Amino acid sequence: MQNALDYLQRNQARFVAELCDFLRFPSVSAQPEHRPDMRACADWLASHCRQIGLETVVYPTDGHPIVLAKTPRGKNGSPRPQFLVYGHYDVQPPEPLELWNSPPFEARIEGRSIFARGATDNKGQLFAHLKAVEACMKTGTPLPCDLTFVIEGEEEVGSRSLAEFLKSHHHELDCDAIVISDTGMPDQNHPALTYGLRGVVAFEVTLHGPSHDLHSGTFGGAVDNPAMALCQLLGRLRDKNGRIAIPGFYDDVAPLSAYERKQFLRLPPKDAVLRKLLGVKRLFGERGFTSAERRSARPTLELNGLTSGYQGAGGKTIVPAWARAKVTCRLVPRQRPARIQKIVCRHLKKIRPPTMRLEIESGHGAEPYWVSPSVPQAQAALRALRQAFRCEPVLLREGGSIPIVTEFKKVLGADSLLLGLALPEDNAHAPNEKFDLDNFENGQRMSVLLWQELCRV
Amino acid sequence: MQNALDYLQRNQARFVAELCDFLRFPSVSAQPEHRPDMRACADWLASHCRQIGLETVVYPTDGHPIVLAKTPRGKNGSPRPQFLVYGHYDVQPPEPLELWNSPPFEARIEGRSIFARGATDNKGQLFAHLKAVEACMKTGTPLPCDLTFVIEGEEEVGSRSLAEFLKSHHHELDCDAIVISDTGMPDQNHPALTYGLRGVVAFEVTLHGPSHDLHSGTFGGAVDNPAMALCQLLGRLRDKNGRIAIPGFYDDVAPLSAYERKQFLRLPPKDAVLRKLLGVKRLFGERGFTSAERRSARPTLELNGLTSGYQGAGGKTIVPAWARAKVTCRLVPRQRPARIQKIVCRHLKKIRPPTMRLEIESGHGAEPYWVSPSVPQAQAALRALRQAFRCEPVLLREGGSIPIVTEFKKVLGADSLLLGLALPEDNAHAPNEKFDLDNFENGQRMSVLLWQELCRV
Repeated sequence: MQNALDYLQRNQARFVAELCDFLRFPSVSAQPEHRPDMRACADWLASHCRQIGLETVVYPTDGHPIVLAKTPRGKNGSPRPQFLVYGHYDVQPPEPLELWNSPPFEARIEGRSIFARGATDNKGQLFAHLKAVEACMKTGTPLPCDLTFVIEGEEEVGSRSLAEFLKSHHHELDCDAIVISDTGMPDQNHPALTYGLRGVVAFEVTLHGPSHDLHSGTFGGAVDNPAMALCQLLGRLRDKNGRIAIPGFYDDVAPLSAYERKQFLRLPPKDAVLRKLLGVKRLFGERGFTSAERRSARPTLELNGLTSGYQGAGGKTIVPAWARAKVTCRLVPRQRPARIQKIVCRHLKKIRPPTMRLEIESGHGAEPYWVSPSVPQAQAALRALRQAFRCEPVLLREGGSIPIVTEFKKVLGADSLLLGLALPEDNAHAPNEKFDLDNFENGQRMSVLLWQELCRV
Repeated sequence: MQNALDYLQRNQARFVAELCDFLRFPSVSAQPEHRPDMRACADWLASHCRQIGLETVVYPTDGHPIVLAKTPRGKNGSPRPQFLVYGHYDVQPPEPLELWNSPPFEARIEGRSIFARGATDNKGQLFAHLKAVEACMKTGTPLPCDLTFVIEGEEEVGSRSLAEFLKSHHHELDCDAIVISDTGMPDQNHPALTYGLRGVVAFEVTLHGPSHDLHSGTFGGAVDNPAMALCQLLGRLRDKNGRIAIPGFYDDVAPLSAYERKQFLRLPPKDAVLRKLLGVKRLFGERGFTSAERRSARPTLELNGLTSGYQGAGGKTIVPAWARAKVTCRLVPRQRPARIQKIVCRHLKKIRPPTMRLEIESGHGAEPYWVSPSVPQAQAALRALRQAFRCEPVLLREGGSIPIVTEFKKVLGADSLLLGLALPEDNAHAPNEKFDLDNFENGQRMSVLLWQELCRV
């Protein structure tokens, strides 16, 4: 195994250059104009997997292609442990572009950081696992298990095609566990195993007023204003204590145990550090919970975007024809996306202004996830983290959602080991996204060690 | 005079073709990228005035050029009545482009309508007066007065340069009255003299939250959401009865007289017709007033646009860094823009969320206007309307603002005669703006007759 670890150390420069190639694809799954880029990125990735020595197939889907890459299986040997490595090559939209210090799809290296959309979420993290397997295969280091990389292109838009794919290919994907590096670690000295994730449910809420934009001088005062009505509608969804004011919203929320609340208190960052990181003078959220609890173990309702009327330079004196908001709720264990979707819609319909037509379009949903950190596989993962990072790992619940994790559990019956390499300052989903090159290297080492530790269980 | 009227009738087809040329300039004063188009439009207009026989000068300004065009003055004659004709060649932004049935800057004729941005506001209406003067000059019909056309390019952005220009050129612009066709008439059978206008004051309100867009999974719950905070802030500015909930907002409002309220009841359109025109199921506004009163004689606060976070296709799970609204208040007689600006800002600062930085940028303001419809000049204008349209004219107060009208009064000491040719269905400031070709022709006749009637006073 030392050969593989040495190989990693010797080849970092090349790995970084290859990662730059991967990051150059504007693989934005949400934007239809990037469909050809999605295809090109999947093809590049497949070709790279084949170079490493993996048996690779690109599966077209109704959405974006899925790349399946397997370590060569032994012939007629006794059955070995099977693990999946999951990742995604699609990225969030890069907008607003003007806030990037360098173009989002031209990877830029500064110090020990590589800046690009998708650097940390998820291309860099996924690439660490691929490089670990390359190290084993190129140095003849035997893997104690069979690995299958499942790499999709719809994580940022709800993983619809992969969910279908899991069902139709579940025999081929049968496994003991799934390994995923798509979460975070609190700082460089705290590698982490994430044992809980929030779910998500998305809506687009539109109020339709007049059939066209109206001159606000000639008609203003005679009709309701959709932008104002939307503000009043949405403003009523959260009370002044930061609690979501939708009846039944908190009904199913699993309460935090005293043990968990104690664990939360020990985790960095402190509020002062978090304030600085986020650039706010004060934090805000549901009264009665710490910021760490609020952002990982409590549900939220966030407005992700507002659109109405004239947004260009100067002014335009109109009553807009319509107003729209993009809304997402983060969910915690025992909340079900379908039920939250139902009660949010019901409540909006109940309090909608009688002057307008309310349109609600429901987007992707994902179940929250929770698995006990004391099971043997989790303990094996913690050992790999400890050796690779030479630090004591921590246990995390995370605020983000990985929709496919609950699908893996449902279809394959296997749990996911979430071994994230993203730092809080990596600007995932934000301008100037980056990935830390030390985490990249340590992540590769962790992956090499992980397969050994998992097969000792 | 009959010669001039006959000339008009004979030349309508050419006039319409010339108006199409005028409408082809994308003279959007609010958008900096259209600066060259503004200049080109002013030059075309000046050249057209010269062809008619007017002595024309284009004055550059810090903003957009002003075109001054005069009928030739008699030599050493006795002083004659002096009138200004005011108009503007700038137009509102055409967005949203996808709602136009034909390109906004390619004039399209369908039946008796000409569709283009600026068709009714104000190029078509201004052009009617130019064509009337052309008819007099080309047929040797003596004008009983001297006319000066003052045509600016900043009406839609606050007329800042013209206000300066009036001060520096007030000797040259000295006059008995100003004639303006930039208002409306209730329908084709009701030509109108508008004796009152609302004022306006504009704001851009921004809430700044985190220093950059944040991943709503990783950080959502820990910080306040600017889009939600903006909704809650703005939502508090209007109560459920449609009244503006800003202390002092209604303090100076001149109450409506019983006579005026009676006049309002006689005016078309009826609410059922208005609902259909605007495409709404129900009207809405300040309780205790009719829709006609609310849209012309009561103040309003309208949101003209909302901008925050991600607005593209699909979703983006962020807490946006900021959220912004464009806001305008329409003002009625005795309300002063400066005072309303002050109390709106003060109130917003008072109720702003403590979690964010509030930024308010104040835009253009215009005083409301009111003049008695019983003065001799107004009566002369009503006679011209009656003859030209062959209908009994009505008296109107209008909801829109013409910022320069109060400047004319202040600097030149002269009142404005507002003889608008726009129909309610002309979509001023909206997609598919149009101008009625019958109103175009009747407007030209009205202008020929007007100078005679005014000089009999």
